[in-house]
Order: sequence, then C-alpha cells, then structure tokens
Amino acid sequence: MSDSSKELTHPLVVDGWFREVSEEYFPGQAFMLKVEKILHAEKSQFQDILVFQSTDFGNVLVLDGIIQVTERDEFAYQEMITHVPLFGHPNPKKVLVIGGGDGGVLREVVKHECVESATLVEIDDMVIKLSKKYLPNMAKSYTHEKVQVFLQDGFKFLKDCESRLDQDKFDVIITDSSDPDGPAEAFFQQAYFKLLFNALNKDGIVISMASENIWLNINNLKKLKDVCHTVFPVVKTCYCTMPTYTSGQISLMCCGKNADIDVAKPSRKLPAEKERELFKYYNSEIHSASFVLPTWAAQVLDNNS
Amino acid sequence: MSDSSKELTHPLVVDGWFREVSEEYFPGQAFMLKVEKILHAEKSQFQDILVFQSTDFGNVLVLDGIIQVTERDEFAYQEMITHVPLFGHPNPKKVLVIGGGDGGVLREVVKHECVESATLVEIDDMVIKLSKKYLPNMAKSYTHEKVQVFLQDGFKFLKDCESRLDQDKFDVIITDSSDPDGPAEAFFQQAYFKLLFNALNKDGIVISMASENIWLNINNLKKLKDVCHTVFPVVKTCYCTMPTYTSGQISLMCCGKNADIDVAKPSRKLPAEKERELFKYYNSEIHSASFVLPTWAAQVLDNNS
Repeated sequence: MSDSSKELTHPLVVDGWFREVSEEYFPGQAFMLKVEKILHAEKSQFQDILVFQSTDFGNVLVLDGIIQVTERDEFAYQEMITHVPLFGHPNPKKVLVIGGGDGGVLREVVKHECVESATLVEIDDMVIKLSKKYLPNMAKSYTHEKVQVFLQDGFKFLKDCESRLDQDKFDVIITDSSDPDGPAEAFFQQAYFKLLFNALNKDGIVISMASENIWLNINNLKKLKDVCHTVFPVVKTCYCTMPTYTSGQISLMCCGKNADIDVAKPSRKLPAEKERELFKYYNSEIHSASFVLPTWAAQVLDNNS
Repeated sequence: MSDSSKELTHPLVVDGWFREVSEEYFPGQAFMLKVEKILHAEKSQFQDILVFQSTDFGNVLVLDGIIQVTERDEFAYQEMITHVPLFGHPNPKKVLVIGGGDGGVLREVVKHECVESATLVEIDDMVIKLSKKYLPNMAKSYTHEKVQVFLQDGFKFLKDCESRLDQDKFDVIITDSSDPDGPAEAFFQQAYFKLLFNALNKDGIVISMASENIWLNINNLKKLKDVCHTVFPVVKTCYCTMPTYTSGQISLMCCGKNADIDVAKPSRKLPAEKERELFKYYNSEIHSASFVLPTWAAQVLDNNS
C-alpha cells in the first residue's frame, strides 16, 4: 500500500486532519493533528498502523487509532521511561525492553555506558520496519553493538526466560507497549508482573507505560498500581508531559524489587554538563519532581483501602 | 440571546463538538470537547464569549475561541496561580487579582487566613455575571467579606494606584488574564510589569498567566521572561498540568521584588492534613516541583544571551 503512487487514505484522517477519539478511554474529548501526507496505512497481523507526515509535529506513528509518537515530542516519553529506572538502579547492566519497536527506548538505553546488553522483544515486525523508514532518529540504535532483537510476544519471552535457569536475569525491564485493548492487553495484568519480578535481579526495577494518566480514569491507574503491589514491594507513579498524548501527559508505573531502593530518587547522577549533552528532557531534578503528584491524585493512588 | 428558547449556535461548535484552533498560536493541532448544550453565546464589548455544557468536563467558558476553564479541571490552574505566590510570600495581607472574572482565583485567595483583603479588577462585567450563573463553584467567593471588585481596566487601575500616594501597596498580585491577542494585550509588556512593581510592597510577588507553555512557542515565553527581568530581580517559570489547555499545561511567570525570597520554595507551609483539606492540587512539594522544567526548556529560558 505505502509503495503505491496513488494517494493513501485512512478513516481517521478527514479533511486533512487526523482525529484521535476514544469513547471508551477518553469520552467527550478529542485531539487533532493536521496531516501533510499519509505515508503508510495498513492493518498488520496485530494492529492498525498509520504513519503520516504532520504539518507541525514531524512524522507521526499511530497504532489502533492512538498516537504513539511524533518526531517533535517523542524524546520526553522515551527519556523518562528509560532514564527514571536506569538512574533509579545503582548499576544496570542488562536491560530488557518489551514492545518499543519504534526504537526510541533503545536509543536512550545505550546512552548508559554501564549497560552491557539491551534486548528488545517486539511482537510486530512491521512497527520496526516502518520506524526505520519513517522515524530514523528513533530507530538509529538498532545497529548498536549492545542491542539484540527478538520478534516475539513479550509475555512468551518472559515465560521462556523463567524455564531457562542458566539465563542471566535483568536489572531493568521497560514495558513500552501500546494500550491494553490491543495486542498489549496481557501487559496490564498480575501474571505479567509476576513474570517481570522473576526475570529481575535482586535490585531490579521495572517501569511500565500505564496507558493512563491522573486526569483520565485515575481508577484504572489505581487498579494497575494495586496489581503491581501484589507482586512488588515498591510501586510508585511518575509522569512525563507530552503535548500529543491525551491530556498532555502520561503516567508511568515504576516497581522495584528491593524495598531499600527508592525509585523516585536517582541512585546515580551524571555531572550536569554531561546530562545536558545526553538528554533533552531528563535531569536528576526532574526525576524526583516527576513523582510529585497533585494532592487529589496522590490520595487516590496511595489509598490502601 | 441566552434566554431565548431557540437553540443557540456558535461558529466553533460543529456537529456537536467545540473545536479549539489557532493558526497563530498553535498551528497544526486542535483540541475538541463534545458539547451537550450551548448555554450562552455573545460578543461582549470586549470579547467573544461562549459558555457550553460539555458531555464530560462540566460547564466550559471560552473567550475569543480559547478554553478558559472547565468545571472538571479548573482547580489545577486556580490553585497553582494563587498558592504559589501566596505561599511564596512570608505574610501576604493585601492581594490584587487582575482579570480572573470567573472568580476561581478569589475562591483560592480567601482560603488564606492571613489575607486581609482580596481586590479583583475585571474589565468585562459579562464574565462575572456568566460565571455566577454557570460556574457557581468558581464564583462563590464574590460575597466574601474580604473581597472587593472593581469593574475597570487593570492597567488603568494600577496607574491610578501609582498616583494615589496614600494607597496601601499589595503583597501579591495575580494576573489572571486571557491571551495577549484580545483585551489582555497590555498585560504582557514592560510598562505593565513596571506598574506591578510599583504597586507591590518590598517583599511583593507577582504571578502572571503566561499564555504559553514550553511545548508551544517557547521563544514567546522567553521573551516574556526577559521583559519581566528588566523590572524584577527574581523571575522564575513554573507550570501546572491542565488537560483542557493546549498541550495539557500552562506556564506561569512568577516575579519577586525581594532578591532574598526564592519564589520556587514555599515561605510558609500548612500542616499536611490542613493542606489536603483545603486544596485538591497544591501541596508544598508540588510548589517546588512545578519549577523543575525539562532540560531543553530550562536551557532556553535561563539563557541570558
């Protein structure tokens, strides 16, 4: 389809605007981006994929109707979901990324010199291929020597890990999935967090895209937090601001296996100058600040009823 | 118009959705809210006013096409623009609000027992009237004994203050205006900040709705900061998250007259329990966290070139 010379169409692009709507997840509100050109539109084996060039946000990847990344603001999400757990951990060597086929998280992981291997497990090869073609700045670390990729279901990958006793465990696992109503549904359930727990070393930290934020259905966020708490001793919620995500922000659920490590504080800090050189969004101050929530949200999420 | 029995219309409400667009301020993106019913639509002497009942965000006030408040999330903005300067100040007694005709800031100001008087100067009486009718929870403090209201241009009010030498000065001034392309244009210029400076006591603090955020045109934010810096020794930028504002957040410019008072830290703190009772968004931790910006934004704003 994308190689055809005729103009592409997609049902969510009308009169030159892409419209993000969801009666189930965010009723009564919608966000729109103006489309310069549709670059690719297809249903892969797993999901509906749309890539378009926007007028003001660069190229945009949309899965099942939901904006995943735009070239203009993607760094905010990629940096926070990566550097919060990686700086939260005292010495991360082995990192696993589940999902994240666009490659943005990999790009951030390999900035840490202490990391020895970065493994990505993505179910949908098409996401990787399209990212390499249309989001080259995100996909640029696929060729990095520390990176290895498995085209596989993340859930199954973790189960296989469990059965291989000789397998090294991971220090940090990042779940960079799409929303729970698509192929990522299993990533929001207790069985998944148990597998994550077992795949981690003793100081291990997991961070998971929460598919929610405090302004949407905070009760869903609370449910996810409670699920995590049945497995992990440390569970904290942080967020990053993202103008093209619903409500302008997304929550991240950060879980730690070692109760003595406070994931809300960096265990390691780079010199400020080095930080500025490597990162556009993340710094050690924003690490802690991102865990500070408005009172009403903290009350809902911290309520242990 | 609003009392007519026939159904109201507004050019920005199409097919049951209100669409917020601005080719000048945020090209290529749009935000939409689903409309249950248009409650009021008119051009006042000063601006285009639209009030509608939304399906999921309560009643919504729109001025010149830009969402000012929704009942669902207004507390975030009202609390931060009020309590950051009021807790930043060691002992605020006299507070001036310029704009803010919806009454939301007044509601927050009078929560401070130390405040002896809260003066509101609003140019557009219609905003006050409509707020009393359609946003009663915001307008509820108009009857408070400490509150006085002047229906006047804020710029002129401050000029008059300057000429009255016997006039007590203010401890905190809050500019809660609309965007600079409407009647609020003067509120973003040096002459205005000079008037604010002169109307303040020696420890005085000013906070101003910046009509921007770091994700939009950060250069406009930088310009405003530079303007403030020609007048005030202390100028810092904070933000609050707001799902119905463009990009999901708004920046606030906070200026202090006393270089020894760091507006980014509360000068006073209430007991945590009292804080939770009074505020839904603000707490002393989020006060400081709201001044922590992503690295790239801090670099632009702090650059003294």
